[in-house]
Amino acid sequence: MQAWKTYQDQHQERFLEELKDLLRIPSISSDSTHQTDMQTCAEAVKKSLLDAGVSKADIYPTAGHPVVYGEKIVDPAKPTILVYGHYDVQPVDPLDLWHTPPFEPTIRNGMIFARGSADDKGQFFMHVKALELMNQSGTLPCNIKFIIEGEEEIGSPSLGAFVSAHKDLLKADVILISDTSMISLETPSIEIGVRGLAYIQVEVTGPNRDLHSGVYGGAVANPVTVLAQMIASCHDENNHITIPGFYNDVLESSAEDRKKMAAAPFNEKEYMRDLGVKSLWGEKGFTTNERTGIRPTLELNGIWGGFQGEGSKTVLPSKASAKISARLVPNQRAGKMTELLLNYFKKIAPPSVSVQCFELHGGEPYMTPLDSLAYKAAEKAIEASFGKKPVPQRGGGSIPICSLLEKELGIKIVFMGFGLDSDNLHSPNEKYDIANFYKGIETIPYFHQYFAEESQKKS
Amino acid sequence: MQAWKTYQDQHQERFLEELKDLLRIPSISSDSTHQTDMQTCAEAVKKSLLDAGVSKADIYPTAGHPVVYGEKIVDPAKPTILVYGHYDVQPVDPLDLWHTPPFEPTIRNGMIFARGSADDKGQFFMHVKALELMNQSGTLPCNIKFIIEGEEEIGSPSLGAFVSAHKDLLKADVILISDTSMISLETPSIEIGVRGLAYIQVEVTGPNRDLHSGVYGGAVANPVTVLAQMIASCHDENNHITIPGFYNDVLESSAEDRKKMAAAPFNEKEYMRDLGVKSLWGEKGFTTNERTGIRPTLELNGIWGGFQGEGSKTVLPSKASAKISARLVPNQRAGKMTELLLNYFKKIAPPSVSVQCFELHGGEPYMTPLDSLAYKAAEKAIEASFGKKPVPQRGGGSIPICSLLEKELGIKIVFMGFGLDSDNLHSPNEKYDIANFYKGIETIPYFHQYFAEESQKKS
Repeated sequence: MQAWKTYQDQHQERFLEELKDLLRIPSISSDSTHQTDMQTCAEAVKKSLLDAGVSKADIYPTAGHPVVYGEKIVDPAKPTILVYGHYDVQPVDPLDLWHTPPFEPTIRNGMIFARGSADDKGQFFMHVKALELMNQSGTLPCNIKFIIEGEEEIGSPSLGAFVSAHKDLLKADVILISDTSMISLETPSIEIGVRGLAYIQVEVTGPNRDLHSGVYGGAVANPVTVLAQMIASCHDENNHITIPGFYNDVLESSAEDRKKMAAAPFNEKEYMRDLGVKSLWGEKGFTTNERTGIRPTLELNGIWGGFQGEGSKTVLPSKASAKISARLVPNQRAGKMTELLLNYFKKIAPPSVSVQCFELHGGEPYMTPLDSLAYKAAEKAIEASFGKKPVPQRGGGSIPICSLLEKELGIKIVFMGFGLDSDNLHSPNEKYDIANFYKGIETIPYFHQYFAEESQKKS
Repeated sequence: MQAWKTYQDQHQERFLEELKDLLRIPSISSDSTHQTDMQTCAEAVKKSLLDAGVSKADIYPTAGHPVVYGEKIVDPAKPTILVYGHYDVQPVDPLDLWHTPPFEPTIRNGMIFARGSADDKGQFFMHVKALELMNQSGTLPCNIKFIIEGEEEIGSPSLGAFVSAHKDLLKADVILISDTSMISLETPSIEIGVRGLAYIQVEVTGPNRDLHSGVYGGAVANPVTVLAQMIASCHDENNHITIPGFYNDVLESSAEDRKKMAAAPFNEKEYMRDLGVKSLWGEKGFTTNERTGIRPTLELNGIWGGFQGEGSKTVLPSKASAKISARLVPNQRAGKMTELLLNYFKKIAPPSVSVQCFELHGGEPYMTPLDSLAYKAAEKAIEASFGKKPVPQRGGGSIPICSLLEKELGIKIVFMGFGLDSDNLHSPNEKYDIANFYKGIETIPYFHQYFAEESQKKS
């Protein structure tokens, strides 16, 4: 048995308790009332890094929430792994659907329930604990750096400036990110791509005040109706997106790639049962895995306008708003697609209303090359700890900072995610399986070992 | 000068103060947290009737909010006028758009701002004060009865049972209602019809929980998108309602009637400026006054689903809901139209979601015959106090109890409304012009006088 595994077996219950402490901090980055919690969480992350054995750790203020940096340089000649993660979490509403409070971590059926348990506190914390066990067992084959930010869930607005101001500090050979999922512990997989994101808000204003729907109904455009018509215009009967130019830059997958993808295990009935739906939905001509992996999409994330209370109010609302986001695939670009969306909604607005649109956040799609050192090391690490070669998979989510990090630092990214699609990310009752948490901690030192070996082979 | 007018001139400032006291009670019938305020308000109405000179007044409990009844029988041989009004008010949200608090009546530029000032406290209270001045000046030509209910804004669910249990108590020769508007003090008008209402809620449920829009986006039907598509399907490019059967029972107005209607003064530019819109909207082939008067409509009163907070949340919502209401015209029936709407939304739901619909409230359209005694008396009363014959007009709003009252009591209704379309009914900054309040009080005794005369002529 590996030396680090022995250490892990002796200490991993404490690791779980430490994770629970981190999960108790309500670090919701999008909500300005949680400003103090963000600082508290950054300090807790810094302390955890120091406890795990980094030789230095700092909190860097930014224009938004702070970035936590830490490093352990074993030998400048050895390869360096830069671990990226985020300590901020999504909002928790609708709160009444949580079975236990989102910031009181609760263990049920071998899973830990809390906002941030899988996304991403529970996942970046595996790297902190992996450092501790490599450090304590004297098995640190690479240098390690950490950059744990507090704005991932709001599109990382301050990270670009930070990275570009600290290129030397962040110098590394690979970026390792655990913020994605795998198929299951029985079928380990590696995400080789994440989708990009273009997220906007559309606001439709009709009359200058809420009106009596009887006195004015029928003579004045209703902004809710108009917004609904605008939204309905975005898809055709095959659920193909009809916004002109939407698919222009999509790199179509080859028949061979699609065939490989189709080999991944997928049980449609189980998928539907888990979601409680009677039938699936999506772009005609593509499978479910393709719809969430290689195809761009347009989702309504929220809508509101007029009277939403108990009972009835006969009002013709002054305003209706929606949050709308597109998931992007190579070679779509977030900036261009955001412009495309903004222009579309402005253009189709009828003269009876005024429409204001603005960007909320965006991020580029990203692909890990299968022939990279980093991918090979990740593949071997998972094979070593799981006893099975992982399946490469395209992920549906977005990690907007990927192309930023690659561009600024000139290095490749590998995703080693240990979450599951059923973790309720961004939803009530987010959870992380404790077995996955432990398995991740065990696997990470293998990655360090194989990455050192692969790097040596190459040089 | 009429005796009552002299009394009014001496006392009307006190009348305004008394109205303010009534407006301070937040009697929102749709909100169960205002239960106590409803009782308080009913008691205040009863006291105002006793102070004005009714010989008896009672509060009748119902399954919902209480009904206030009062009467002054001068002589059983004289005709009896039954005044209907309501002491309940609409909700006040969005509260931040009010310039002064909705339940702190404030006078600015000759107008009294408060929720309920025009709809309907300020209007039914004119009848209370008119009774006082007829009583005090010894000029009561008719018997008078009052029925002031507390559930008009929620569809009067308890009034039917009350009326049908108290037919003898409510026996009268005409029902007089001040809960509508006129064109202006310079162009007085009488509403000869009100539209009916069929108000429903539609709830679309997709997955059993909010999902991550990246992990699942593109593969699972988004309930906001589906709801938007359902709403968009209700109108065609001419803003004609496309729900099958929607117009089946509409009694088309004759070319002659439409010509008469077109003679009413209407300034489209001023109308648009007041509403802050660049162009009007509506069913092709009809004028604005026709669209709000003789045509049925379909309005979105509210919509909500998914994330509505600050910033962005990449969620694929589990549920989206809307409040939808149709205004009805003769001979559409509320029950049938409600069924039509409920069935439509259930029927068009795609299999990827489940749809639940239910009725919120409804009411029948109503027309006052122009050759009725009551209409003639109202016409003469307005001519006497305004010096001008009123224009007959079709109103856009709904007073759902009209056809109920007519059916149960077997008598006609006449609308003598003194509000203005610009009173912001159901909106922030509801107001009532003090001049209209005073003019209404002055006009009502004329109605009593002419109704007595017309009744005598007939018999």
